[in-house]
Amino acid sequence: MTRGTLYVIGTGPGSAEQMTPEALNAVAKAAEFYGYGPYLDRLSLTGDQKRIVSDNREELDRAKAALTRAASGINVGVVSGGDPGVFAMAAAVCEAIEAGPPEWREIDIVTTPGVTAMLAVAARAGAPLGHDFCAISLSDNLKPWDVITRRLRLVAEAGLVIALYNPISKARPWQLGQAFDVLREILPGTVPVIFGRAAGRPDEKIVVKPLSEADANLADMATCVIIGSPETRIIDRGEKPGLVYTPRYFAGGSK
Amino acid sequence: MTRGTLYVIGTGPGSAEQMTPEALNAVAKAAEFYGYGPYLDRLSLTGDQKRIVSDNREELDRAKAALTRAASGINVGVVSGGDPGVFAMAAAVCEAIEAGPPEWREIDIVTTPGVTAMLAVAARAGAPLGHDFCAISLSDNLKPWDVITRRLRLVAEAGLVIALYNPISKARPWQLGQAFDVLREILPGTVPVIFGRAAGRPDEKIVVKPLSEADANLADMATCVIIGSPETRIIDRGEKPGLVYTPRYFAGGSK
Repeated sequence: MTRGTLYVIGTGPGSAEQMTPEALNAVAKAAEFYGYGPYLDRLSLTGDQKRIVSDNREELDRAKAALTRAASGINVGVVSGGDPGVFAMAAAVCEAIEAGPPEWREIDIVTTPGVTAMLAVAARAGAPLGHDFCAISLSDNLKPWDVITRRLRLVAEAGLVIALYNPISKARPWQLGQAFDVLREILPGTVPVIFGRAAGRPDEKIVVKPLSEADANLADMATCVIIGSPETRIIDRGEKPGLVYTPRYFAGGSK
Repeated sequence: MTRGTLYVIGTGPGSAEQMTPEALNAVAKAAEFYGYGPYLDRLSLTGDQKRIVSDNREELDRAKAALTRAASGINVGVVSGGDPGVFAMAAAVCEAIEAGPPEWREIDIVTTPGVTAMLAVAARAGAPLGHDFCAISLSDNLKPWDVITRRLRLVAEAGLVIALYNPISKARPWQLGQAFDVLREILPGTVPVIFGRAAGRPDEKIVVKPLSEADANLADMATCVIIGSPETRIIDRGEKPGLVYTPRYFAGGSK
């Protein structure tokens, strides 16, 4: 039988200005949309297009529901904030396909990449990701906490700038504070830490603190936290916000 | 005096479909554009808008020229491929401002983020960046080679997926092969390596090899190389290309 196509759609950081035409075209092609409510709210749908809202933590069930519909011949959209390939729905869809019935492997998967949160925050703060960096999810729902702290130690020793996704939530209140403690053992206290919330949206808020004063209370679920390397610098511009950036050259501040 | 605004513009991976409306709006506001020729070629300029082409390796001089013009009151665009904050012009502009005359700090800097190469390649391959990952530039023009190999070892030990930018060029022919050798000492030979060239463009080419067979000749200047972690898997789909992905959960394949 003819299978539908499953579009895995990245809506970018939240402003319509930062969503690609490719993602909009994918939206036009699908009949049903699966996702977390606030991400689905970003789409302008016609009366014929259907929304199926699910909770933020139900990625795998959502992926299965969407694949079931696509297998039956419907064109389906699975919607992510930012980029769907970064700690988001593209991996959940793959997990579901691997464990699912053989017909799910016959579905065309079309993923439209998007501007992921760390890139939007970095653009507002200066150029903190101008040199080697990493992205680490602080969620210990699917990964043991000691794996996370081990990774933080190794990337800090490597001198990489660190973007933390999923830094904090009601169910995970202490992890970010402990991550700062781990990093303070390795990195200088002067390293800049950027708390970037809702970058590119009307309620955007960017706060910069030295690591010695970084406080987990400055973050919430919608925050991307970027921790500089020993190479990361701040250009003072008087009344304008400072520019936080990591040079392309290696000055020797990290190893 | 009134300063111009300096727009640092990300054009995305290359297809017009993957450039954001925000970047297009920034293009509309500037009078002069500085960049590498192939990136400037992506812009549709009016007869009044001026192009100043420079070589790919002249980022700092280009930034200085653009800042000089912006300081004199002109709205200027500095153009990058992908995202300007990732191994690109945003950091070069900051370097120039920090070392430049005080009036350069009075210029408004507006950076429009874009879809960076690794996200575009990942979207085509499956979801290889679905869990913790890093981006490392393999260029030793501005960073000693032993720093690069040390970083590769640490991030491989950390179990991160590794995206390599600037993997190879005529002037740097042997670095990618040596990077594979370093990683083969730490990672299983079965780890998938994605060679993603020109993702999203008509001449796109995605090749996947196990690390044991990864060959630097499969890459050129326009390639982003993504090396999986021990958690990264491939879903066989028969005639369709396999889906390379890194699960959101931690199965214990890496530490």
